Amino acid sequence: MTAPLNRFSVEPLARMTRRLADVAGGRAEPDLVITNARALSTYSERILPDREIWIAGGRIAALKAAGTYKGPNSYDAQGLILAPGLVDPHLHIESSMVTACAYAEAALVNGTTTIVCDSHEIGNVLDADGVAWMLEDAREAPLSIYLSVPSTVPATGPAIETAGGDLTPEKIAALFDAWPEAIALGEKMDFVAVAEGDPRAHAILAAALERGRPVSGHIYGRDFVAPYAASGVTDTHEAVDAEIADDLLEAGLWIFLRGGPPTTPWHSLPKAIGTVTDYGAAWKRVCACTDDRDADDLLAYGLDWVVREAVRLGIPKPAAWAMGSLHPATRFGLDGEIGGLGGGRRADLVLLDDELVPQATWYGGELVVEGRAPTPRLEAALARPYRYPEPAYRTVRLPVPLPGLVPPLPAGPCTVNAIRTVLPGIELAHAQVPLVPGADWAETLRSHDLCHVAVIERHGLNGNVAHGLLSAFGLRRGAVASSVGHDAHNIVVAGLNEADMRLAVETIAEVQGGVCVVADGAVVALVELPVAGLISDRRVGAVAESVRALKAAWTEAGCAIPYMGFNLIPLSVIPQIRITDKGIVRVPEMSQVPLFEPA
Amino acid sequence: MTAPLNRFSVEPLARMTRRLADVAGGRAEPDLVITNARALSTYSERILPDREIWIAGGRIAALKAAGTYKGPNSYDAQGLILAPGLVDPHLHIESSMVTACAYAEAALVNGTTTIVCDSHEIGNVLDADGVAWMLEDAREAPLSIYLSVPSTVPATGPAIETAGGDLTPEKIAALFDAWPEAIALGEKMDFVAVAEGDPRAHAILAAALERGRPVSGHIYGRDFVAPYAASGVTDTHEAVDAEIADDLLEAGLWIFLRGGPPTTPWHSLPKAIGTVTDYGAAWKRVCACTDDRDADDLLAYGLDWVVREAVRLGIPKPAAWAMGSLHPATRFGLDGEIGGLGGGRRADLVLLDDELVPQATWYGGELVVEGRAPTPRLEAALARPYRYPEPAYRTVRLPVPLPGLVPPLPAGPCTVNAIRTVLPGIELAHAQVPLVPGADWAETLRSHDLCHVAVIERHGLNGNVAHGLLSAFGLRRGAVASSVGHDAHNIVVAGLNEADMRLAVETIAEVQGGVCVVADGAVVALVELPVAGLISDRRVGAVAESVRALKAAWTEAGCAIPYMGFNLIPLSVIPQIRITDKGIVRVPEMSQVPLFEPA
Repeated sequence: MTAPLNRFSVEPLARMTRRLADVAGGRAEPDLVITNARALSTYSERILPDREIWIAGGRIAALKAAGTYKGPNSYDAQGLILAPGLVDPHLHIESSMVTACAYAEAALVNGTTTIVCDSHEIGNVLDADGVAWMLEDAREAPLSIYLSVPSTVPATGPAIETAGGDLTPEKIAALFDAWPEAIALGEKMDFVAVAEGDPRAHAILAAALERGRPVSGHIYGRDFVAPYAASGVTDTHEAVDAEIADDLLEAGLWIFLRGGPPTTPWHSLPKAIGTVTDYGAAWKRVCACTDDRDADDLLAYGLDWVVREAVRLGIPKPAAWAMGSLHPATRFGLDGEIGGLGGGRRADLVLLDDELVPQATWYGGELVVEGRAPTPRLEAALARPYRYPEPAYRTVRLPVPLPGLVPPLPAGPCTVNAIRTVLPGIELAHAQVPLVPGADWAETLRSHDLCHVAVIERHGLNGNVAHGLLSAFGLRRGAVASSVGHDAHNIVVAGLNEADMRLAVETIAEVQGGVCVVADGAVVALVELPVAGLISDRRVGAVAESVRALKAAWTEAGCAIPYMGFNLIPLSVIPQIRITDKGIVRVPEMSQVPLFEPA
Repeated sequence: MTAPLNRFSVEPLARMTRRLADVAGGRAEPDLVITNARALSTYSERILPDREIWIAGGRIAALKAAGTYKGPNSYDAQGLILAPGLVDPHLHIESSMVTACAYAEAALVNGTTTIVCDSHEIGNVLDADGVAWMLEDAREAPLSIYLSVPSTVPATGPAIETAGGDLTPEKIAALFDAWPEAIALGEKMDFVAVAEGDPRAHAILAAALERGRPVSGHIYGRDFVAPYAASGVTDTHEAVDAEIADDLLEAGLWIFLRGGPPTTPWHSLPKAIGTVTDYGAAWKRVCACTDDRDADDLLAYGLDWVVREAVRLGIPKPAAWAMGSLHPATRFGLDGEIGGLGGGRRADLVLLDDELVPQATWYGGELVVEGRAPTPRLEAALARPYRYPEPAYRTVRLPVPLPGLVPPLPAGPCTVNAIRTVLPGIELAHAQVPLVPGADWAETLRSHDLCHVAVIERHGLNGNVAHGLLSAFGLRRGAVASSVGHDAHNIVVAGLNEADMRLAVETIAEVQGGVCVVADGAVVALVELPVAGLISDRRVGAVAESVRALKAAWTEAGCAIPYMGFNLIPLSVIPQIRITDKGIVRVPEMSQVPLFEPA
């Protein structure tokens, strides 16, 4: 059995300085020398010709002139560019529906060797226990995973929805004190509450600040920038254009440029980068990040791709790579450990072609990816993933018996407070639809371009079911359902008839979490997500394949917005209208409205 | 009695976020608005027109468009440039012969509001107690003073000299654990020992690294860079030219460009900055610092002057100011607290003219300097300085009776291992002088261009006295003496006759420390340094005046090197030859040689 491969496989620098000095000084042999390379310096933002790097005990002993080393332990870089591994300063592992151990595989293939994750989804289901289990998962992963502690769980309050988690200031403080890798407070999503001085929000900020931990942000709207920054928030990944990016930079925030598949609204980098490319701001406090990724997008749209987008938009290559490595490391006080090719740093390294496409990755001095595939060393590590404890596999607890998912057909004409789905699927419009009931729901839905939607509380707390109607969702048959209904992660189901909707919900309950498509009494696609009802326990390739099949069925079913947008239907912090387990919510007023009103 | 004015006068951000959000959001009144300013952004490296800054509780609530505020508490900046206070990442307060409380005055006049000091001089005299007392002093000063814990006390070992302090790895660890403001390990001066893997040196590095504290460096010689960097050192202020600065930057070190009076060798900035201006390195990891300053040079050559030197050498103004503020703050993980005009930061602010000359300074939102003079608020604070405990005033403990300071005249011709002083006064040459004794020492000295030098152990430990001879020192009469003989701070005295030398030494003992010039049986100049024999307890202006008088007498006496160079005569880590209380030391071999050898 080979040795474990995780963040702790490399000894702390404090215990290695003498050995590294001996190797750098030529008094001891390196374990490995990667020679015949160009070196990408994130420190000086230059590409240095003819270098080699000496590695001992998983750390960098020295960067030297190529050809200095004469021993047997060398790897020929064949003139490629050697760079530090990427550091992703903000993402949610759960978005990719995989465990931390599984996430590592995709990250390493893309040259990412460190991530800062905010596990607020599992926190919303399993409270602090879920966060702790994911940290255990992270500690066993072949990847350096730091935590930004979920700051906004639940996203709203018990008047609006039922969540599984409630991370109080005290629980957040306890997480900081128990886990040294908890290096920051995660995105404080209730930015309006923060800006308005809400006591709970500020008590959570204080828990981080009084421990010397920085606070990550999440903010829209230039008017909120000043009070939000004054509250101690020092980064954001939500800058959607150059104007607000510029405001935020001047207010003292580090800017994380978020890149994502170009067809999605997550790809805000091209506009936000204008603070640098159009307005001339220095880029030293600008980073790149991924935030959320579907499993099947992980490989094609990694942080390396985001960095290349920055290059495409005018940032010099070494500076763009620094935005994805040294700058995030510096933002979190880790630049003595990662982010560059300096002496003493972890030997987390990537070999790049001239277009900055990763060709090989070393994690802690071990070759883990070559030719864009895991090496046997990495395969061995991936074959022994962390196993979540049993309670994490029993989180879909529906009311028994399951109440009706379709409301009674109104007796006469009325107005429906319907939810109109619109691309790209983030904002939802409030459609007040005049309803003239037909013979039955099927006829009525067809004639009004509606379909049913329901949210079912799934934490075993109160068995709530709320009914609603979607407008223009486009579903042609059957039903679709998901246990990843942000952020409380209740079950959200849409459908044209009660039977298919029930089958969809019962299928998800059966496998304890997932996303599925049902048609004519049969399950046509299912992604099983048994851990917290959010993530799979399989390898990333298997999950990606399953997600691809789901997406095909999803499109085939006619759904007008992608399933990730569908999962946002219960997220009552995004305009204009949402449905939670407690009913239909108008977001601007944070108040409930009935499904049917008198005409 | 007014409230104290020190670092703790401003509440921690964790306790102020709600108030600041209220002020930034317009729901509460600011204490002060500095309006009609241009804002120097250290974040984006731009100068922003027409801004005003809102201050509450000593912190920045928001930077807004000029004219937004309509209330009564405004200060008209008259179009000047508003910038964050400077942050000096490396200096020794003792070099200026003043207390921390007194140092604050000069710093604030020059727009410096935070310093990181390495109190290794007082550590060499009073061990960890001295470091702790200076930290008490620092806590009462109207200036934010952080400590880089002295790392190399004594500079050599007991075989070479007798020091008052011995900061073991255990004592250094205890200082880190007791003082949160101990944010780094101070310059690790024994870089050869570090590079060679010396166990004590590495145990000291480990004490910092295992506590997550960065290590500051001190290194000469490109060959040492790789093993030194591999040992975990991540900054240096000793880069003397562009080549080594470039090597150090690529090895992962932050570069502190040191500026000083241009006639001194401390002014290494103009050459070292070539890594940026000639070799094209990014400047994001480049800072400015002062290191050592004579009291009388403090005002004219502050960190503001160093920043202006960077501008003169081609760095854009906002970037140069960032090198003196945001970059050092970032290097020490303080950029959420200081270094820029972002929300939540301390209102440590400077108003600058277009040449970046400070016109006014606010410390924690309080106006402390205006028209280059302390305001009444600062005067009140300066009138109540910290008082060092009595043991700090009793550190010059000479042998009683004082042994002879002049050796017996050799009976016949011999060779003298003399110390030849050469400008600028740092390196000393080894002169092997053929000696033909005359009738007495006076005639002998005159005919060989020599004068006596002696080092007297002054910590009350063993009463050692060592005799030597200086060549080409130029002394025309009397004697000069100092209790600031680096780094062990024994008494060093040079003179032409025993009587004047004794008077000089006894004068220093009488006042418990100082530097003096004696001629013909009379003291002609004396700077009294009663605290640890290193620093005065008077205001900086008085000390500067006293130092100016000393320098005049020093020059008048004919001394070929300045008194700061004279103080280095016992510093047995600088080539080529030195004299300590244990005798004459050849530095390259770290071995003692006799004063007289057979011809």
